[in-house]
Amino acid sequence: MASDRGSIPTGTAYGRPPQHPNHTLTKVGPGEPCGEYMRRFWQPVLASRNVTTRPREVRILGEDLLIFRDGEGRPGLLYPRCMHRGTSLFWGHVEPDGIRCCYHGWKFSVEGECLEQPCEPDGGANKAAARQPWYPVKERYGLVWAYMGPAEKMPLLPRWDVLEEIGEDEELSVVDNSFGAHRDPNGPEVAPYSWLHMNDNIMDPFHVQVLHSTFSEIQFVKEFEVMPTVDFEYIEAGVIYKAYRKLDDGREVDRISTWLAPNIMSVPSTQLAAGRSMGMGFVVPVDDTHCRIVSAMKMPKGAVRQPYRVKGKTWSEMSLEERQDVPNDYEAQAGQGPVSLHSEEHLVTSDRGIAMQRRFLEQDIRKVMAGGDPRGVILDPAQETVRVPSGNFFRQPVAA
Amino acid sequence: MASDRGSIPTGTAYGRPPQHPNHTLTKVGPGEPCGEYMRRFWQPVLASRNVTTRPREVRILGEDLLIFRDGEGRPGLLYPRCMHRGTSLFWGHVEPDGIRCCYHGWKFSVEGECLEQPCEPDGGANKAAARQPWYPVKERYGLVWAYMGPAEKMPLLPRWDVLEEIGEDEELSVVDNSFGAHRDPNGPEVAPYSWLHMNDNIMDPFHVQVLHSTFSEIQFVKEFEVMPTVDFEYIEAGVIYKAYRKLDDGREVDRISTWLAPNIMSVPSTQLAAGRSMGMGFVVPVDDTHCRIVSAMKMPKGAVRQPYRVKGKTWSEMSLEERQDVPNDYEAQAGQGPVSLHSEEHLVTSDRGIAMQRRFLEQDIRKVMAGGDPRGVILDPAQETVRVPSGNFFRQPVAA
Amino acid sequence: MASDRGSIPTGTAYGRPPQHPNHTLTKVGPGEPCGEYMRRFWQPVLASRNVTTRPREVRILGEDLLIFRDGEGRPGLLYPRCMHRGTSLFWGHVEPDGIRCCYHGWKFSVEGECLEQPCEPDGGANKAAARQPWYPVKERYGLVWAYMGPAEKMPLLPRWDVLEEIGEDEELSVVDNSFGAHRDPNGPEVAPYSWLHMNDNIMDPFHVQVLHSTFSEIQFVKEFEVMPTVDFEYIEAGVIYKAYRKLDDGREVDRISTWLAPNIMSVPSTQLAAGRSMGMGFVVPVDDTHCRIVSAMKMPKGAVRQPYRVKGKTWSEMSLEERQDVPNDYEAQAGQGPVSLHSEEHLVTSDRGIAMQRRFLEQDIRKVMAGGDPRGVILDPAQETVRVPSGNFFRQPVAA
Repeated sequence: MASDRGSIPTGTAYGRPPQHPNHTLTKVGPGEPCGEYMRRFWQPVLASRNVTTRPREVRILGEDLLIFRDGEGRPGLLYPRCMHRGTSLFWGHVEPDGIRCCYHGWKFSVEGECLEQPCEPDGGANKAAARQPWYPVKERYGLVWAYMGPAEKMPLLPRWDVLEEIGEDEELSVVDNSFGAHRDPNGPEVAPYSWLHMNDNIMDPFHVQVLHSTFSEIQFVKEFEVMPTVDFEYIEAGVIYKAYRKLDDGREVDRISTWLAPNIMSVPSTQLAAGRSMGMGFVVPVDDTHCRIVSAMKMPKGAVRQPYRVKGKTWSEMSLEERQDVPNDYEAQAGQGPVSLHSEEHLVTSDRGIAMQRRFLEQDIRKVMAGGDPRGVILDPAQETVRVPSGNFFRQPVAA
Repeated sequence: MASDRGSIPTGTAYGRPPQHPNHTLTKVGPGEPCGEYMRRFWQPVLASRNVTTRPREVRILGEDLLIFRDGEGRPGLLYPRCMHRGTSLFWGHVEPDGIRCCYHGWKFSVEGECLEQPCEPDGGANKAAARQPWYPVKERYGLVWAYMGPAEKMPLLPRWDVLEEIGEDEELSVVDNSFGAHRDPNGPEVAPYSWLHMNDNIMDPFHVQVLHSTFSEIQFVKEFEVMPTVDFEYIEAGVIYKAYRKLDDGREVDRISTWLAPNIMSVPSTQLAAGRSMGMGFVVPVDDTHCRIVSAMKMPKGAVRQPYRVKGKTWSEMSLEERQDVPNDYEAQAGQGPVSLHSEEHLVTSDRGIAMQRRFLEQDIRKVMAGGDPRGVILDPAQETVRVPSGNFFRQPVAA
Repeated sequence: MASDRGSIPTGTAYGRPPQHPNHTLTKVGPGEPCGEYMRRFWQPVLASRNVTTRPREVRILGEDLLIFRDGEGRPGLLYPRCMHRGTSLFWGHVEPDGIRCCYHGWKFSVEGECLEQPCEPDGGANKAAARQPWYPVKERYGLVWAYMGPAEKMPLLPRWDVLEEIGEDEELSVVDNSFGAHRDPNGPEVAPYSWLHMNDNIMDPFHVQVLHSTFSEIQFVKEFEVMPTVDFEYIEAGVIYKAYRKLDDGREVDRISTWLAPNIMSVPSTQLAAGRSMGMGFVVPVDDTHCRIVSAMKMPKGAVRQPYRVKGKTWSEMSLEERQDVPNDYEAQAGQGPVSLHSEEHLVTSDRGIAMQRRFLEQDIRKVMAGGDPRGVILDPAQETVRVPSGNFFRQPVAA
């Protein structure tokens, strides 16, 4: 008899069904729906300055690859295991025209052509038939970009207008280490969670009011303490929001932020500086549970982005308890786990931007699975340049 | 021909079949037979003193949970992933009436009620329908207890007589860190092996004579060098043993030790102090391969339990080789692996207590699977107090 | 239209099928084809000097075992989990006639016989029926050898002629730690890759010219810069190569190296010292992804093998980048991964020795699966001694 047992608690955690991620959006390896979708776009791999004649291992879209620059300055992105006997070309040496495996000396160009097989009779009569698996790369905006999709579907690498128009006193500041958690260079180079956590964050203007403004301390500027009125809107190849705020001093500002398929953002100045956004960011999936945040931003020449500090300490200098006191984007997103359990989420009105992004992604993932081209892929050189609407736009006072 | 090969060895390790744990007794996650059985009892989680306004992660019965105390002093045990978007409430801040998520500010009471949704229109018109998964908790004996089972089956938290009768100069000494291996505070807070290893140890009076007394050095007292004569006996909700020893000095002692379902022990003084047992211990399954030993013991006010030392060194100060020289309970139980392979055991006459305990557990696990209530669950407040028979009882010399 | 997309790259890494190891040759656990094959031969476990009354854990052929020497000097190799209740005998103490478990005092001889059960009535009336799983061992050449196969198939432990004929000023130098990577005692005791990586290396004379001679620096001697002319040849129970070189100074040398089933090598002096090989090596599978390289070599009494140094630094003192500059056998083999993906290899003319070895192994693995005895197993004491053809043999100049 229940009555013998006293009052019966309600809503307890007992008996919950198992929960799971939305794998359609989170699995990025070869052959996975999102993996194939992501492979239809050029992805930034590393800053150009970090691609040198010293071979370096990178993981991207669940694939372990090797990136280097040959002696003539050409960047290369190769499958790392030598096609001959599988020793990693990480142990190879770069020469003017390629990279040579340490074990038996096979040499490959940045496009995987086999240039030498020194132990073979006649230097390898059939070496022209050998090809080390490789991916096409390009350099632009201080970044090395890769195309990891089907060869016949290779699109153009877009130009984003905000990165094309660089003032005389400006330069592009390029980051390829996920900002190391709050711009701390000793933080993690790769964020230990799904790309979707950061992607969700882009169309989420409300967390700015809570996490960054009122929860612990002012992490951007005091003006974000005002809860905005927000409109979300689909654009041709993405989603934007317009967040309107009437500030305490009477000024009114429309903050427009942009998400472009598949993983591209242009966030306006978080210091609420007036005018158009100064840069682009890319949430590159490393694997299902890691992402690398890459960005290129116009800054005054010589300016250096400083780590965010709390009581003088950078992220890596803080204890776990100190981080509990002032959580930031890294904690909020890592706090969702290596990959969130989307089946147990409760999306509400203020999550409309996230819902729109995810719907866009699911539609285009299905489109790619059905053989189509996703939105945002550019094939026509006349449409190479993408207009980015982001910015902080202060409304003009009506003249008295 | 075998004869060509010389003598043929017998009994070698070649060709043994694969071995396995007794999963009926060792798997403690939700839905597992032992997991569901364990969930029918209140379990101690942490010492009250360790439950504060600083949220803390705990794993218990294979579930990752968050424990904290709200600003009004109420302990709470919540599912850690915020029901809204999954960020861990570990990064939340405690307020007088609950805990607030860092990401979008949802606030929950210690019973999971959603108190605020600040980014939603009208502060969340439907927030009353939202419920963060939670578990009921109680505080008693300096411990926070949780009930993780079906709501309609929630029993009373028992009172054990040895903890109820506290002398004026006594207080309860509460330990929630598994004693850190031989009471070394730098030892592991959670023991890296199945709860069953420690549970088996309770009804095993014979290892006292070997491991603790004659194998390396005297770890308790010299009197335990005498091999006891032992009777095992079922009681209503457990098993006890009576170990009789005639000591070298002519004294005779009956040592009674108690195991109560499902994971409760009351071990008499290991210094062979005369009289009833002074405390209770609990072998709480953390997951299938870890357990946390919690205990509450009456001690003189201000007394402090000192680490066990060998040649002046605590457990964590000893090298592996030094620990090989003087293994103790931690080594014997960790030495069975993360979870023992019960199919290859050879239980013998001296293991009768262990066999009785396991039979008891298997019977009641089946009873719970069939919908019944296990022995040891108390529903009637008149039966709330449990009498514990443990103690070291010296026989009176017959008057001359 | 493809033409809209510009030039289409060829041979990219996109769309490669999944690749896999040759599990027939790499899986060495009980019941696996290669595991059963390997178990038909005696395998060296550790150097005799490292087998003492201090029990030590070893893994071999995927099995975790315990090796020790009893108080009378007999080596023993036992299944580590006590047959009684599963506590590891690692925590046991060695006595003159065996090892005693710490928990309940059962004692076992080096052949697993149960000598004592102290807590049992009458000291264990049935203890003669108990047997701790064990493996036969022998000592020879400063090594402890184990036979882990079916008892009725136990062969003789071969004698290799190069280890039998020891000069008066010589002694056997025995190594059981895989040389710790390039003879650095601080390097890994066990190599973190499949035994097949090292086994492949034995019949691969060409990598000597690349990896060890021309890729970075001279790791053996300058003479190996000459690309050899090589013949490979099956012998009764293995494969040999004869590498002919005409040196710059006019000398001509035939270098003969030997691989014997299943994992045995005799490599001639890598300093190109003239004459027969001085020792034997054994690539013992630890598990599917680790191996232990054991060797016994005749050396002048008191001689000590020095670590290989680059710019004064041993392997463990070098940074990853310094190791990239001068990779050696460890890097080339570890660079193939924990276990190589043989399905994507491209074996060519210069890999003929490797192909022959693998064919030999696959044939004999099938033979064992069909119930036969593999080549190299010796049953007849008259054939106990194996002649090893390895050596550096300089051709005599024709008298003028």
